[in-house]
Amino acid sequence: MKGYSIPRTETGLSSLVPSPPWHYVGDFLVVDYWADPDAVRSILPEGLEPHEDTGRCAAVFADWQSCSETGDELLDPVRSHYKEFFIVANAMLGEEEVTTCPFIWVDQDFALVRGWIQGFPKKLGEVWMTRTYGLGGPADPGLRAGARHGATCSARGREIADMTLTIDGVSEDGPKHNAPPIVNVRHFPRLAAGRHDEPQVHELVRAVSRDRIASTVYEGEATLNIHEARGEEHHLLAPVEVGRGYRFTFAYTVDDLETVKELT
Amino acid sequence: MKGYSIPRTETGLSSLVPSPPWHYVGDFLVVDYWADPDAVRSILPEGLEPHEDTGRCAAVFADWQSCSETGDELLDPVRSHYKEFFIVANAMLGEEEVTTCPFIWVDQDFALVRGWIQGFPKKLGEVWMTRTYGLGGPADPGLRAGARHGATCSARGREIADMTLTIDGVSEDGPKHNAPPIVNVRHFPRLAAGRHDEPQVHELVRAVSRDRIASTVYEGEATLNIHEARGEEHHLLAPVEVGRGYRFTFAYTVDDLETVKELT
Amino acid sequence: MKGYSIPRTETGLSSLVPSPPWHYVGDFLVVDYWADPDAVRSILPEGLEPHEDTGRCAAVFADWQSCSETGDELLDPVRSHYKEFFIVANAMLGEEEVTTCPFIWVDQDFALVRGWIQGFPKKLGEVWMTRTYGLGGPADPGLRAGARHGATCSARGREIADMTLTIDGVSEDGPKHNAPPIVNVRHFPRLAAGRHDEPQVHELVRAVSRDRIASTVYEGEATLNIHEARGEEHHLLAPVEVGRGYRFTFAYTVDDLETVKELT
Amino acid sequence: MKGYSIPRTETGLSSLVPSPPWHYVGDFLVVDYWADPDAVRSILPEGLEPHEDTGRCAAVFADWQSCSETGDELLDPVRSHYKEFFIVANAMLGEEEVTTCPFIWVDQDFALVRGWIQGFPKKLGEVWMTRTYGLGGPADPGLRAGARHGATCSARGREIADMTLTIDGVSEDGPKHNAPPIVNVRHFPRLAAGRHDEPQVHELVRAVSRDRIASTVYEGEATLNIHEARGEEHHLLAPVEVGRGYRFTFAYTVDDLETVKELT
Repeated sequence: MKGYSIPRTETGLSSLVPSPPWHYVGDFLVVDYWADPDAVRSILPEGLEPHEDTGRCAAVFADWQSCSETGDELLDPVRSHYKEFFIVANAMLGEEEVTTCPFIWVDQDFALVRGWIQGFPKKLGEVWMTRTYGLGGPADPGLRAGARHGATCSARGREIADMTLTIDGVSEDGPKHNAPPIVNVRHFPRLAAGRHDEPQVHELVRAVSRDRIASTVYEGEATLNIHEARGEEHHLLAPVEVGRGYRFTFAYTVDDLETVKELT
Repeated sequence: MKGYSIPRTETGLSSLVPSPPWHYVGDFLVVDYWADPDAVRSILPEGLEPHEDTGRCAAVFADWQSCSETGDELLDPVRSHYKEFFIVANAMLGEEEVTTCPFIWVDQDFALVRGWIQGFPKKLGEVWMTRTYGLGGPADPGLRAGARHGATCSARGREIADMTLTIDGVSEDGPKHNAPPIVNVRHFPRLAAGRHDEPQVHELVRAVSRDRIASTVYEGEATLNIHEARGEEHHLLAPVEVGRGYRFTFAYTVDDLETVKELT
Repeated sequence: MKGYSIPRTETGLSSLVPSPPWHYVGDFLVVDYWADPDAVRSILPEGLEPHEDTGRCAAVFADWQSCSETGDELLDPVRSHYKEFFIVANAMLGEEEVTTCPFIWVDQDFALVRGWIQGFPKKLGEVWMTRTYGLGGPADPGLRAGARHGATCSARGREIADMTLTIDGVSEDGPKHNAPPIVNVRHFPRLAAGRHDEPQVHELVRAVSRDRIASTVYEGEATLNIHEARGEEHHLLAPVEVGRGYRFTFAYTVDDLETVKELT
Repeated sequence: MKGYSIPRTETGLSSLVPSPPWHYVGDFLVVDYWADPDAVRSILPEGLEPHEDTGRCAAVFADWQSCSETGDELLDPVRSHYKEFFIVANAMLGEEEVTTCPFIWVDQDFALVRGWIQGFPKKLGEVWMTRTYGLGGPADPGLRAGARHGATCSARGREIADMTLTIDGVSEDGPKHNAPPIVNVRHFPRLAAGRHDEPQVHELVRAVSRDRIASTVYEGEATLNIHEARGEEHHLLAPVEVGRGYRFTFAYTVDDLETVKELT
């Protein structure tokens, strides 16, 4: 039986998640912001300590195209396109500044499960993000000063978050709050009676990537709303202060993950 | 940190999959059929042996409503409704007749992940199934002799399967090919470099349920099509012979799973 | 060229809306309520006058199965199933009590256009509604006293409305606020330059139906929320007072529409 | 009451289709091809005559962003993004070469109804199309020679069409089969008993646009599949010969439509 994930067969062709490496390219809208420090403390997994600037967070929208080594998915874009929204909070792993992702929504099944494999707690959502076409005209905002971009995320028909960016120029450094390496929790529950509280997989993991390419980053004034929604708790991390917004394109490859610590 | 699944928080309220027990009720359309015996052999997981009647399979559509112990999801049906299509093949676990599910599609995220936890290799799909309303009139087929019911499943915009049933009366025994207990493979991959072929969870598991309730079963002549679809392999199990079709309603509760064997 | 609607062909088979008659059966959740009388006045089309009890409205969820004369759609339920949410306000057409529908969302294309043909101003939305299965068990609320039912509607990822009903018994009369005949506005715009304000179709129409069948009606205490949503105005008709809720199943046939008045 | 389309209110803000002008920008994949000449003849509306090269057709995928005069939709992209697939056939309007669109699928409600207003017989579908990001890396095909692009369309879970393009260089002239002006049929049915065959709007219309901007066009070898699907007839226009494929970006504005002829 072959296949990186279930369903597995003699060929492995129908695996929901194809074998790594996974190549990605995507457009990003990011807003650096601050949430309530107590709320950030409440979502830090075991093994991470609060950052000195405890409330530091970033809200991220990404409009992705991804593929496996063959690149076949690029010709069948229902298997390569997905959009997602997530929040990262800043934290410390020992002496090291890191980020961690407590909440994330994505619009495709392969990306949802690929996220769980990497420790991203993905749920399905609907994500929309303004595009540029490099052509001009009144429907193409472009990336010039004054250009306005927006993004929204909903899940189960409820608003999760929205942001806007009004570009004022090129950014020297890009977003700061999502810059540190990301450390997440890989988790897979048990169903055996009496053991529902003993997950079979439960470990702190650090993302590993390679072949990173980044475009020019544009920045400007931003708005960010994080909405309360029935059945969701990301509203804990609603902004108490909003920083700058950023727009850029980014590519990388993932085929590794480092286990930092087994959690019990 | 609480929560049966990720995302986990101080309260556990936003967990994608709520804590067991999970209570279910659903309408079913089932067709007993036979696939190519070699194809069935090819999808049997390690630990299962071919059944004497090797090609014996069932195709199943289900239109579910489920909830956790609080029942809160019943008042917020985006969290309780889902529809799915799956195939089971017959096999032997030692001396015991069992079934196993190599392919399944479902239309909600909580049900997809809840399936992975139970060893069902779920992907997202779109599922449609004729309903009865107990009222009559030309748009309500009812469950009388002559009533016709249909169901379709697609995934990524491609046809997966469709079936029809023309009821001719009450069934004494109900469907036979999906009657034996179900044994699946729980599987969760590793991403650490060099270990992509060593899943972190990989075990043969037997479904356990309780508090089963079944309605009268209606049966009749059936049609079944299993379609070839790019990126899918369920077509291996296309019917070479189609048996009877069945329509019934069924309820049960799940809060346990038995590990039969660790796979390596 | 044949076909009741576009696209039209030699056979008419691919028409988005099949030729009348249209047969319907559906489950309903209805809440009688009152909105701000000035808001109701503001949405009454030309030709209707305010009702004496001006704010009288009903909020309606329906979970439909419909088909054309051949009934073929019943075997292909992607063409027969749809769910919708709408608001009706009470008004007077001369001396006659009527209702009118200012806002409605539906989850299928054929139902959206079929609605426009009848004067229902449908947009796409997502609609969810608790089901009963007639079987019992903790996931099946049934229709007994104490049974709780809920429904939600969203559009473009924003909450539109939700309601709940706790059944306390059989209703003698059923809902009152949506009982009068419905009078809507059929409208189809012009695009010719200079004539954007002169719709090509603009008429007050009265719905006509036949072969109506209704189940027992259950009623009880209800909750109703009508949410503000960007790009929507149904929030004008948010409840200032909420009456009783109702649950029933209803079937009818439509193949006629009466023009009451040409609007200019 | 204001509003270009229903629903209409005092402000007009919730109109499904905003008032013209409508500004558009989009990425295109186009394949010039030939269908069976008799099939093309069968879908020509009254008022158009067969082209000398009767089978000449084009298959078009477009990934659009559009907005009204305020541009507000650009910041709320659920109201500006949509993707569509359509076929155009070549024909003669008197002495003039024109195209006409017999079949089209789109993934948003506002675009569906906006299409009906312009005479495009839109149904809902799901459309996917390879993207470029201008960055490079293995997930970004770019527009260089050798770059491969693909697109798929499905509706009701059934495959409608797919195409691929392998770019070999810059095109001097761009696609030829969809170049002539487009002439469609605006049509809105009647529901009054006895008049179902007398549409209230039925006219041959010619699209009018302004402020057209086009990017460099890339071309290359193409594949095109047009699939048979239950309830659809576009398969009539399946390719008997496939020409070149094209990839470009295009913007324009629409706020007018010319009536060529009333049809009876």
